[in-house]
Amino acid sequence: MTQHTPQPEDVFAWIDAAERAREQAGLVRTLRPRPASSPLLDLASNDYLGLSRHPETVRGACAAAERWGAGATGSRLVTGTTELHTELERELADFAGFEAALVLSSGYAANLAAVTALGGRGTLVVSDAGNHASIVDGCRLSRAEVAVTPHGDPESVRKTLAGHAGRALLVTDSVFSVDGDAAPLAAYAEACRDAGAALVVDDAHGLGVLGEGGRGALHAAGLAGAPGVIATMTLSKSLGSQGGAVLGPAKVIRHLVNTARAFIFDTGLAPAAAGAALASLRLLRREPERAARVREVAADLYGRLTASGLTAARPDAAVVSVRAPSASAALRWAADCREAGLSVGCFRPPSVPDGISRLRLTARADLTGDEIVRAVGTVLRTAPAGATDR
Amino acid sequence: MTQHTPQPEDVFAWIDAAERAREQAGLVRTLRPRPASSPLLDLASNDYLGLSRHPETVRGACAAAERWGAGATGSRLVTGTTELHTELERELADFAGFEAALVLSSGYAANLAAVTALGGRGTLVVSDAGNHASIVDGCRLSRAEVAVTPHGDPESVRKTLAGHAGRALLVTDSVFSVDGDAAPLAAYAEACRDAGAALVVDDAHGLGVLGEGGRGALHAAGLAGAPGVIATMTLSKSLGSQGGAVLGPAKVIRHLVNTARAFIFDTGLAPAAAGAALASLRLLRREPERAARVREVAADLYGRLTASGLTAARPDAAVVSVRAPSASAALRWAADCREAGLSVGCFRPPSVPDGISRLRLTARADLTGDEIVRAVGTVLRTAPAGATDR
Repeated sequence: MTQHTPQPEDVFAWIDAAERAREQAGLVRTLRPRPASSPLLDLASNDYLGLSRHPETVRGACAAAERWGAGATGSRLVTGTTELHTELERELADFAGFEAALVLSSGYAANLAAVTALGGRGTLVVSDAGNHASIVDGCRLSRAEVAVTPHGDPESVRKTLAGHAGRALLVTDSVFSVDGDAAPLAAYAEACRDAGAALVVDDAHGLGVLGEGGRGALHAAGLAGAPGVIATMTLSKSLGSQGGAVLGPAKVIRHLVNTARAFIFDTGLAPAAAGAALASLRLLRREPERAARVREVAADLYGRLTASGLTAARPDAAVVSVRAPSASAALRWAADCREAGLSVGCFRPPSVPDGISRLRLTARADLTGDEIVRAVGTVLRTAPAGATDR
Repeated sequence: MTQHTPQPEDVFAWIDAAERAREQAGLVRTLRPRPASSPLLDLASNDYLGLSRHPETVRGACAAAERWGAGATGSRLVTGTTELHTELERELADFAGFEAALVLSSGYAANLAAVTALGGRGTLVVSDAGNHASIVDGCRLSRAEVAVTPHGDPESVRKTLAGHAGRALLVTDSVFSVDGDAAPLAAYAEACRDAGAALVVDDAHGLGVLGEGGRGALHAAGLAGAPGVIATMTLSKSLGSQGGAVLGPAKVIRHLVNTARAFIFDTGLAPAAAGAALASLRLLRREPERAARVREVAADLYGRLTASGLTAARPDAAVVSVRAPSASAALRWAADCREAGLSVGCFRPPSVPDGISRLRLTARADLTGDEIVRAVGTVLRTAPAGATDR
């Protein structure tokens, strides 16, 4: 005789309903593992300079793992800071034009660290409505009063700052992930200066792409190293590695070391990732034309796509965003591109602030003219009804 | 004639005051970069199995970087999932006894992802007062109702859960970082079962140390793969790499893929880190005695330290925590140890929940008997007045 134990209710039964709702809305996301050698032409990754597989970058990763080990072995304040981390921080700060830098395990962590350490109770954090999720999560964690201003609207920022007595900061992406458009950095900086507020700019999509030799959007705007200006960055896009960084005055960096929970309570970045990022950075210094090339590729993609009647946002950096008639049409479009040998991104709710779905193409410095023609041809051939204006 | 522009006020002037306050309280933290070959005996890292520099782990990192590139090149849902990530997820789930796993860029991100995706408005999240900062931040981000219960107190958990109608979950560390003590997992699980609540356990300090062959605290408690139970883990401690993971039923993992912002909006873990973690995992399967050895070392350290009159918490895993009379005494003690060739951790407010500062020694499976004797001798020789009971 077998023992009958009462079958406990499934505590995750509510997930079944959530799953069904996603299915019905056509919003199911699934992971699609890629092989090491993909036959697909890649216009989906953020490997803007094509460095993630560059022999020097890969050698930088391996040499660091061999010299320092596979992991940092602890938080940065205990055993997780190697001389390699310090070297990367010094060279990154020098390259981008800031006094000091702090390297974290991801760009997401960098935004959490910067916004929480500079926010806090009693502070007003003004956040552009188009900001990346990691900035939004930083705002939520900061315990500050958060005011979201319309996307790219310095006048609203100015008014919001004027209505607050006490410490304040404005946080914005330099280049927005969804449409690839640039923030009005000069006007934002002026609004901050006039109000005595700090400016925190996530230059994830600007580093390696914008500014002299890829020094970033803040450098291009003459704001690198300016008083009151902080940058956050990622090592996982143009630098082809993993990790994030916060750059600013040395005392702000010291403040983060002492107070930013996303920094203090996280294991240090793996030496291989630090070594790869440093190798990429040195390569970019030696070959500054890579930054100009990625902008040319983006402009070329945009010109060809819009000339064919597609609706795309003019790219301010490497991201070219093409509007799709609906979420399901965008999904099918991306799948058809893939079927035809082209990998593109597909942004759908809730990853788009305005509910409009997009194909997202990213320019790479190492795309050839033939590849650009092939990519555009594929996007056009697979375009759904309603995607072109003709 | 030079142009006089008005000197803008320093918007970060408030940091000067914060810095002075930290100095006066003896709570300044500074990064101390370590060289590749340190003469110090390491009892500060979380490299419990001594694998971060193991040739197989390092080879795993390099082979992955060479085959897949230095970075994942995008978020996991775009281009950041390689077959290597999937392989690691499958083997980790199989090893720890769960249906499925999801790998993230850090353990901090894994806790944010698990708690936010399973929390949410209307949910009650019960959190042990000793929980790690990453769990606390996950609670803050979750928009759930959060109830903090006294450290290691199943009765309080039971009462708190009973007072809530609707979805609930309990989140706890398996082994607490500060004192190295274990959570009452069996009683916590029973309280959750009785209340129909989910149980989320951060096994950062259990994986590789507790359970059969290092399968973790949940495996040891017979809770691995149990209905309603979720584990989070880190790849940066016993596995000597970087990254984190969430383990549980496949549908919960799918739910995280679709909803966890800390997963969706982050670049995938670098291939080198995934490759290193996978190599370590395979090595641990082949050499399960490493897990038992680290527990022996911890017991040996504890026995010798307390026999000499120091006050330490009995270690349930690899962390041996020794009480210091004050924050400044702890800092000086750790500095004196370092001076004498021994690297130990120093936990001070705000990293300690009860305000009591500690020296934190971590056992490693590859510490020799001589090294243990040397370490204990150094800790004793440098002990401040008031640290021993004799």
